[in-house]
Amino acid sequence: MVTIRNIKTILTAPRGIDLVVVKVETSEPGLYGLGCATFTQRWAAVATAVEEYMKPLLVGRCVNDIEDIWQTAMGSSYWRNGPVLNNAISGVDEALWDIKGKMAGMPVYDLLGGKCREAVSVYRHTDGATPEEVEENVRRYMEDGYRYLRCQMGTYGGQMGKGKQRVISPENSKPGAYYDPNQYCAGVVKLFSHLRDKLGYEVELLHDIHERLTPAQAIGLAKKLEPYQLFFLEDALSPEQMGWFSHFRNQTAVPLAMGELFNNPIEWNELISKRLIDYIRVHVSQIGGLTPARKLAALCENFGVRTAWHGPGDLSPVGVVAQLHLDLAIPNFGIQEFSGFSPEEEEVFPGCPQVRNGYLYANDKPGFGIDIDEKKAAMYPCSYREPGWLLARTTDGTAVRP
Amino acid sequence: MVTIRNIKTILTAPRGIDLVVVKVETSEPGLYGLGCATFTQRWAAVATAVEEYMKPLLVGRCVNDIEDIWQTAMGSSYWRNGPVLNNAISGVDEALWDIKGKMAGMPVYDLLGGKCREAVSVYRHTDGATPEEVEENVRRYMEDGYRYLRCQMGTYGGQMGKGKQRVISPENSKPGAYYDPNQYCAGVVKLFSHLRDKLGYEVELLHDIHERLTPAQAIGLAKKLEPYQLFFLEDALSPEQMGWFSHFRNQTAVPLAMGELFNNPIEWNELISKRLIDYIRVHVSQIGGLTPARKLAALCENFGVRTAWHGPGDLSPVGVVAQLHLDLAIPNFGIQEFSGFSPEEEEVFPGCPQVRNGYLYANDKPGFGIDIDEKKAAMYPCSYREPGWLLARTTDGTAVRP
Amino acid sequence: MVTIRNIKTILTAPRGIDLVVVKVETSEPGLYGLGCATFTQRWAAVATAVEEYMKPLLVGRCVNDIEDIWQTAMGSSYWRNGPVLNNAISGVDEALWDIKGKMAGMPVYDLLGGKCREAVSVYRHTDGATPEEVEENVRRYMEDGYRYLRCQMGTYGGQMGKGKQRVISPENSKPGAYYDPNQYCAGVVKLFSHLRDKLGYEVELLHDIHERLTPAQAIGLAKKLEPYQLFFLEDALSPEQMGWFSHFRNQTAVPLAMGELFNNPIEWNELISKRLIDYIRVHVSQIGGLTPARKLAALCENFGVRTAWHGPGDLSPVGVVAQLHLDLAIPNFGIQEFSGFSPEEEEVFPGCPQVRNGYLYANDKPGFGIDIDEKKAAMYPCSYREPGWLLARTTDGTAVRP
Amino acid sequence: MVTIRNIKTILTAPRGIDLVVVKVETSEPGLYGLGCATFTQRWAAVATAVEEYMKPLLVGRCVNDIEDIWQTAMGSSYWRNGPVLNNAISGVDEALWDIKGKMAGMPVYDLLGGKCREAVSVYRHTDGATPEEVEENVRRYMEDGYRYLRCQMGTYGGQMGKGKQRVISPENSKPGAYYDPNQYCAGVVKLFSHLRDKLGYEVELLHDIHERLTPAQAIGLAKKLEPYQLFFLEDALSPEQMGWFSHFRNQTAVPLAMGELFNNPIEWNELISKRLIDYIRVHVSQIGGLTPARKLAALCENFGVRTAWHGPGDLSPVGVVAQLHLDLAIPNFGIQEFSGFSPEEEEVFPGCPQVRNGYLYANDKPGFGIDIDEKKAAMYPCSYREPGWLLARTTDGTAVRP
Repeated sequence: MVTIRNIKTILTAPRGIDLVVVKVETSEPGLYGLGCATFTQRWAAVATAVEEYMKPLLVGRCVNDIEDIWQTAMGSSYWRNGPVLNNAISGVDEALWDIKGKMAGMPVYDLLGGKCREAVSVYRHTDGATPEEVEENVRRYMEDGYRYLRCQMGTYGGQMGKGKQRVISPENSKPGAYYDPNQYCAGVVKLFSHLRDKLGYEVELLHDIHERLTPAQAIGLAKKLEPYQLFFLEDALSPEQMGWFSHFRNQTAVPLAMGELFNNPIEWNELISKRLIDYIRVHVSQIGGLTPARKLAALCENFGVRTAWHGPGDLSPVGVVAQLHLDLAIPNFGIQEFSGFSPEEEEVFPGCPQVRNGYLYANDKPGFGIDIDEKKAAMYPCSYREPGWLLARTTDGTAVRP
Repeated sequence: MVTIRNIKTILTAPRGIDLVVVKVETSEPGLYGLGCATFTQRWAAVATAVEEYMKPLLVGRCVNDIEDIWQTAMGSSYWRNGPVLNNAISGVDEALWDIKGKMAGMPVYDLLGGKCREAVSVYRHTDGATPEEVEENVRRYMEDGYRYLRCQMGTYGGQMGKGKQRVISPENSKPGAYYDPNQYCAGVVKLFSHLRDKLGYEVELLHDIHERLTPAQAIGLAKKLEPYQLFFLEDALSPEQMGWFSHFRNQTAVPLAMGELFNNPIEWNELISKRLIDYIRVHVSQIGGLTPARKLAALCENFGVRTAWHGPGDLSPVGVVAQLHLDLAIPNFGIQEFSGFSPEEEEVFPGCPQVRNGYLYANDKPGFGIDIDEKKAAMYPCSYREPGWLLARTTDGTAVRP
Repeated sequence: MVTIRNIKTILTAPRGIDLVVVKVETSEPGLYGLGCATFTQRWAAVATAVEEYMKPLLVGRCVNDIEDIWQTAMGSSYWRNGPVLNNAISGVDEALWDIKGKMAGMPVYDLLGGKCREAVSVYRHTDGATPEEVEENVRRYMEDGYRYLRCQMGTYGGQMGKGKQRVISPENSKPGAYYDPNQYCAGVVKLFSHLRDKLGYEVELLHDIHERLTPAQAIGLAKKLEPYQLFFLEDALSPEQMGWFSHFRNQTAVPLAMGELFNNPIEWNELISKRLIDYIRVHVSQIGGLTPARKLAALCENFGVRTAWHGPGDLSPVGVVAQLHLDLAIPNFGIQEFSGFSPEEEEVFPGCPQVRNGYLYANDKPGFGIDIDEKKAAMYPCSYREPGWLLARTTDGTAVRP
Repeated sequence: MVTIRNIKTILTAPRGIDLVVVKVETSEPGLYGLGCATFTQRWAAVATAVEEYMKPLLVGRCVNDIEDIWQTAMGSSYWRNGPVLNNAISGVDEALWDIKGKMAGMPVYDLLGGKCREAVSVYRHTDGATPEEVEENVRRYMEDGYRYLRCQMGTYGGQMGKGKQRVISPENSKPGAYYDPNQYCAGVVKLFSHLRDKLGYEVELLHDIHERLTPAQAIGLAKKLEPYQLFFLEDALSPEQMGWFSHFRNQTAVPLAMGELFNNPIEWNELISKRLIDYIRVHVSQIGGLTPARKLAALCENFGVRTAWHGPGDLSPVGVVAQLHLDLAIPNFGIQEFSGFSPEEEEVFPGCPQVRNGYLYANDKPGFGIDIDEKKAAMYPCSYREPGWLLARTTDGTAVRP
């Protein structure tokens, strides 16, 4: 019986974003697995959870029993379904799938049922200060073969610096990323009108509200965007407001993608079974790893909902590969967000998947086919970072949970 | 690349029930897999579907691509989700999982996430002409360690021969198994009153209406059975009448198990996502094999519904083992129907799982760990059998779809 | 008492499409009936079901008892509502109606309540590589008096060969009909814009999505097609996704026709009783023949839904005539799809109905008024055919159940 | 302007349960506040979250801005509504309320609107190995003036050691607290039958299922308990299964209390607004402290739901006092769980509230009126503890998330 000999975290920030990777070492010399446990905003708390709780709880357990280990880990904290602990579990869970693949001599996608497609379409993020600048950035990606682009003007919410117009009091002492919902909405409509005018309808365009609007504002914006044929509208509402989606659905046919902020099954069960969204967009490690994600994909398949797993820069390459293997194996894959890798990341993580012509390809090695160079990882230490853009505030200084 | 070299059916009836097993042979000498495709009432049509359609469609395909093969096979007939073709697909699908397990050197349950439990609790069927006879049969099973028993008086519906009372015209020429819903309901209440009186509440008792009642009759019976604490009430309504379950649910808390007759996802999606049943009871090969069954289990898990796969005599030992592997790997396993094996079956199918103390155990060999002796199988040929008990008729001669 | 003496299948492919016709012979010399049992993609399995199960089950039964025979046949397989067995039952069922008409000396439409109209309006299929080519084909039919035309560009989904642009990897080894949903949608909008521009609004135009889109894509396309006044939009969603129609309905008033893929009452009951579609479009033999189809028409009448029975080339002329008799007898007839007959078909099936000025006329002979020349039928044997266009794949190689 | 000068955690286990208390120190010498951040199963992760994230984020902020600080802290992690981070926020939040009371020279209950009642009724936990033993323990509490008792037989689920009857395999290697749902249910009914028989109906009795049953089992048990007039039935279902409560509600009038496991508003919003429960039972620090708890009380008041905050041993005395102040100030207070204090706790936490005659009394000092002796706290260090009883397993070894 192959058992868990050690569980440890590897903390690294090769492109200036704090990443948490879990390494599960086994009783079999040289046999180990890697999993993503990145909750970049709280990486230190995740590391504590892994080292102080996952390790003593799970060392000695048989590596085969992934499902039982997942259930045990979830139940052992009594309170659960939250971001810190879900990530800690994800790190172990994905590492166990990596190990199982290596033991089987198969890529993980084969354990999950085999490839449903050759490679997976990705979308990239583009932004700019003006519609013209966004257009230029979109064209640059299109030349590289990308066919799906998320387009934003300014940053999320079209934020304004403190010195800009319409903020109640520029000398205001509270930290935050100020924005004006009304200016933002008007800007987005102008942006997409420009883009469709210049680019036509062959390229797929996406937009992310990033939970910056009230339900009424979000629905209003969605209706105005209908003529521009979005591939989907992302994160229209904050996770506390899922109950608005039946009203949303009655008002517009804009395809909706939700869920990057979800941690709890109760957040998605009704949205999916009532077909209130078109794409589920959870961050795989935030729901607890590959074990729950493959079940979530199956749930979605029954109801005709497609996947669009969260793929930002705050996902380790291990996490990118884990979701890529899932993307390859599920019939109802929709699209994959992808943020590229920095050269430093590619050095730290040998085996990063390659993108060609807008498609992301897995290598076909056993397990996830990705490794980590711990020495190089240690060259990029994690640190506390000001949450900056997440401290959203409207023009009068009201804090908005993004 | 290992590919499918041949697909064939093995037809055998070692205990007088026609079974269909599919054998998928690969390009790798000696590497093959087995799957269950048993639709006993229409075995010949399944065999035709396998030999005439699955074989030419799939020979040459890579054995890894189980999901793609499943989707392709389902789509290739255009019309789908019916019993004959689902079984044909199941035969291939399960055989491919068997092959994948052998290639990985792992039992299939490990591919599915690993064991969640040591072995699976089963329930057995008991019946008798009187409450006392049923009691006696229950006690016999309890002595063998069984803790879950399905109790019926007479056969399903408490059928009466043509010469018995209350049939409109004994000389009636139409074939059929006549029964009187009213007599049947009265008898069931008497039966469980007797059993609980004699056996107490430690043993779990089940009952199967077998779709023999109208919705109103079934709900009425369920309410009368509440005091006797059924583990579940099985197949309360025919599959065409699933829309009655919200009314059913409002009227009684008797745990409900449904689905042995389902073939189509539309039959179960709403029942599960609206939590209108407690146990899903599909016949795994009837929905297309292990690939859809593991997704169905995941769907159920999200909504707190448990599994109780159909496990009658008209399931080949290969099918028994396939569902056993799934039972072991899912957290929301509920109970497993089990009908034992005849000595002839155990000879034809080396590797039949063993039952000990009311639990069914898998052996831990790669794949499903079961084989077929084709020569012995050929000694028990299939044949046309009168559908007898399925031609249900009420006392005035009305045909009832069971 | 006239009884069933024999039941047999006649397999023939007079225009290169495999057809299954059932002949029921009676105890009355020379008295027989014909029914359609064509499931072209699985003709051999249907033939097995008829010969091996319908025949032994029903020989000797009184030909009068159509309803009881239908119920008995459905119940006798226990699992039911699937395409293979429904077709087998349909073959017998329609043949019994043909016999009953002959015994009564009446056309079947008279048994069903008598003619509601003189003849039935049909729609024809047109396609082409460009909007101009489609326009030309539409005009040709209009000159022949047709007033309803289904218009498609390319084949379904606007498929591309493997060598065409945007397919992930032209050398890809998986078989399939590749298509790009986005290109397809853009093309359809262009097509109808062109057609309405050139042809005006007097001719009725239809379009068939043929289940090639996700729900979000289909709804988006429907909204864009609204200005072009479709008579109806056909098969917007695959049969597994009927739960999306309430969202669909809230978003667009485009008339919707659904159901050619249905086999199970659960697929249509909610759609009709909740008025989520405008036209029911089942393939009559796929739901089990004339007996269930006339009840389905009655259900639709209650809710203001009209009929548009599936009428492709893979419907035998016997099937065409059976549904024509029904079309004539029901008040809520909507439209009839019609694919014409080849000269070979007209030879094999003496009595094919005639179309004049876009109307299909029944002859007024007893029964269905159509016969089969078995010798000629034998000249066109059935064979296995690659499912070609049904193996739909999107550009990345994902299989799509059509 | 008084600002936050420092935020630190004090970790202590004076009765063998790990507690986390947060101390917020201000720019005003000697002015500080205390808050409860106890998530006993993951105390180290909470401490990391406080020290590494709350501290750098909030030092320098004005102590007046409790609401803005709460919103900012919740939003700053992006992912939220989970147990680790909610507790970290609770620690700060409650400390800020303590500070505000001290600055106002008022007990916190006065800031919350003033006392609605003189003191708050509490319930105590009792258990025993037999109904008689439980009875004896109940009587002892009754003699001390308590009028509300929660009664359990054995521990939760009536667990069995590995050597006890009915566990599949006593030599089973997986750790866990094994229990048999059926034995447990039978025992509970016997217990309450005995208690009501012996104690009559003047004393209020409660029972806690502690999420140990399936929905069907829980509903069945509730119905059987109806005659025994529970004050409420606690935690009938696990937090993932809240969707079952409408079925639950239709079946029984047993008063329901839920929520000790909740962290996310989505878990309670529907339960309350649809009146599916009678008592809300959240653990105040697990939802983020006093700020969200007073709003939750307001929500409940709107819908006629009453409070029953979680009050186990794994709540620091600071947490006990914080919820006591809230209990005093809200009109819809229901009942308060109370677990007493050990002598060590009373030493570490000067100002622990006193219970008299079954009522808990606040002292009337400014703020919460409780302090911590950091030196004594340090004498009882926290440590990793085996989650023991939380690793629930049914008799076949299946892990159950409690």
